[in-house]
Amino acid sequence: MATQVHPARGMRDFLPVEKRRRERVLRVIRDAYEDHGFEEIETPVVEDAARLHAGLGGDNEKLAFAVMRRGLSVDDLRAAEAPLELADLGLRFDLTVPLARFIATNRAALPPVFRAIQIAPVWRAERPQRGRFRQFVQCDIDIAGEPGIAAELELLAATGDALTRLGIPDAFIRINDRRILAAALEHAGIAEEQREGALITVDKLDKIGREGVAEELGGRGIDGARLLATLDAIRDGQPLDGFDVSVLDGVRELLDANVGIRLDFDPTLVRGMGYYTGPIFEIAHPDLPYSIGGGGRYDGMVGRFLGQELPAVGISLGFERLVELVALPDDGVREAVALLVDKAVEPAAALAIKRDLVAAGQTVRMQRRTKNVTGLLEQLAASGATHFAFVRPGDAAATIEVKPIS
Amino acid sequence: MATQVHPARGMRDFLPVEKRRRERVLRVIRDAYEDHGFEEIETPVVEDAARLHAGLGGDNEKLAFAVMRRGLSVDDLRAAEAPLELADLGLRFDLTVPLARFIATNRAALPPVFRAIQIAPVWRAERPQRGRFRQFVQCDIDIAGEPGIAAELELLAATGDALTRLGIPDAFIRINDRRILAAALEHAGIAEEQREGALITVDKLDKIGREGVAEELGGRGIDGARLLATLDAIRDGQPLDGFDVSVLDGVRELLDANVGIRLDFDPTLVRGMGYYTGPIFEIAHPDLPYSIGGGGRYDGMVGRFLGQELPAVGISLGFERLVELVALPDDGVREAVALLVDKAVEPAAALAIKRDLVAAGQTVRMQRRTKNVTGLLEQLAASGATHFAFVRPGDAAATIEVKPIS
Repeated sequence: MATQVHPARGMRDFLPVEKRRRERVLRVIRDAYEDHGFEEIETPVVEDAARLHAGLGGDNEKLAFAVMRRGLSVDDLRAAEAPLELADLGLRFDLTVPLARFIATNRAALPPVFRAIQIAPVWRAERPQRGRFRQFVQCDIDIAGEPGIAAELELLAATGDALTRLGIPDAFIRINDRRILAAALEHAGIAEEQREGALITVDKLDKIGREGVAEELGGRGIDGARLLATLDAIRDGQPLDGFDVSVLDGVRELLDANVGIRLDFDPTLVRGMGYYTGPIFEIAHPDLPYSIGGGGRYDGMVGRFLGQELPAVGISLGFERLVELVALPDDGVREAVALLVDKAVEPAAALAIKRDLVAAGQTVRMQRRTKNVTGLLEQLAASGATHFAFVRPGDAAATIEVKPIS
Repeated sequence: MATQVHPARGMRDFLPVEKRRRERVLRVIRDAYEDHGFEEIETPVVEDAARLHAGLGGDNEKLAFAVMRRGLSVDDLRAAEAPLELADLGLRFDLTVPLARFIATNRAALPPVFRAIQIAPVWRAERPQRGRFRQFVQCDIDIAGEPGIAAELELLAATGDALTRLGIPDAFIRINDRRILAAALEHAGIAEEQREGALITVDKLDKIGREGVAEELGGRGIDGARLLATLDAIRDGQPLDGFDVSVLDGVRELLDANVGIRLDFDPTLVRGMGYYTGPIFEIAHPDLPYSIGGGGRYDGMVGRFLGQELPAVGISLGFERLVELVALPDDGVREAVALLVDKAVEPAAALAIKRDLVAAGQTVRMQRRTKNVTGLLEQLAASGATHFAFVRPGDAAATIEVKPIS
């Protein structure tokens, strides 16, 4: 080989075996979501840059790949005061901003309560590292138009069903509510202008632990011990003087329902995105140090594009992490017959046999016969062939003998 | 609505009904290709800019959307001598350049003869106009590693089968061979340096007619009448003094085989791309003024990335044009039960009924009951629901009555 040829940095090719596996897992997720009444939509992979940079994507906005304006001249380069001025489009960094735009575009054609499936790639210009890719697939379900907890229940049940069908029964969902966090911050006496920073620190609990969080909060001039004690008391249901317990109602209702997947109330759960307004979720697995999905209610966001309020809530599965956990039975393998074609057979005659077998419902792979048939069969079995037949001059579909590769 | 909100220019959203239809058509194509022994792969949507602009994409290279380098500074903008210097990635404009790159990357893991399926979007910054989109789906099959006509036969048969399964039996394939064109140009006495230009003009036959072609050739100082007469004679099998008829062997072998779709020999067929080296194809339909796909043999191209020769041939279906022609029977519609939930029913109780129905194999859509049930049912039927049931306080899955929406 002249030089090593790679896909673009941080991106991946999928060979047939892996592609089949991924598509099969996606099919299971899609089926579960469709059974729960969600409907799949598709949006273009690029959105107008102004829309991607409307402040709704949090830190992810900085990771958007920018697509250059067409017809730029050197004068345009000289005149630009920032690189992004030269871009009018960008690759989407999530599926939520495009969904909000989609609903604003197509509102008149959608039912009052719309249950959307999006299964599609997103792009982020992250520093490539193990397990992080610059193109990766997300599986989102969202319900727009339903302000009540009924939407959260449907999302959690659909997610639980999908994870069960994927053979991941140990997955569970940590839940919290942004309104609980707000009440806890207030109760812990944290000044309004310090609350956003306090949440950013609490969000690091998994990474830096309680002591780390308390220390970092102290550095911000916040009484970290008091905040953590408040959150503990809320989790444990201990009485807190002057705390408005009605903010717990929504989470209680979720915890009391049977959604088919374990729910853990965790008042320290923050979730990064600034647009959440109510319940928030994070999908966890006991074997994994990171989450395999998350979501929450974002009642104000669709309105930013639509021009009128529309409540919405969604859950996103991180497919790349999920696909590693999946244990599906091996029953989806299709039989495939490899035709080992003798060199003396005319191509048109070999094709006639292949076409007859395909018409009879077989999956057929043509293969020139080589001397080392044993090695050839091993190779074919590894690439998914289950049966084989020799094709010799004069053969027809009726005269060849199809045998299993044993 | 505050302002009209659109997808990015020249791109489209797909609502559930259209998305379902597209996925169903793609499933039929994918199944046909898999039955014929092809295997699906996936590559990232972006490729390194240098690779997209290696001269293998013909005119399409100019239409590639450029993705900006990360971390550009204003100084970089000032220093750049051309806009493309600021881009290190681009959105793929076809699936052939990525395939050649994929094979070069993964050669060691692929069988000696590799049959690839790629069903995926590509992007071209064309001026948006009716029926032309900036993001559109192509369905490609390619065979790499097989130098003989057996590869062309397999591709044509798989394509014919896919079109038959899609209910487009009138489609046919125009075929020619770049070697026939080369021999015709030589026989018509056209100087070597004029041949590429002559082909560009002949390629316009569909658009400007014989007279237009003859005139344009004349403008180039070429005897157009003589070239067209030569091509006519080749098509009609008339003897041509000094013409090497062995260049016709490949096309004759294709025409004589039964590939399951009508093949028309057309010596005036050129196909735009410069990389074709042997047989070329264009898929046509009597009702359409444009092609619905095409392809050909490109033996030198993979070697450009791989560093060693590897013969290859492929056919690409233009999905966006194809999907308009498709006539599939209506048997793929899944039953869906709409639950019309009384306001007084607790969300958790409604969810329990939904979960029981889903577990029993139903597709279930929740719907708040409104006063105008008739109107509601019409709306539900339009969005795909086939059955409905009222849910009242105290109901369970066993007590509700599921009826067809008539």
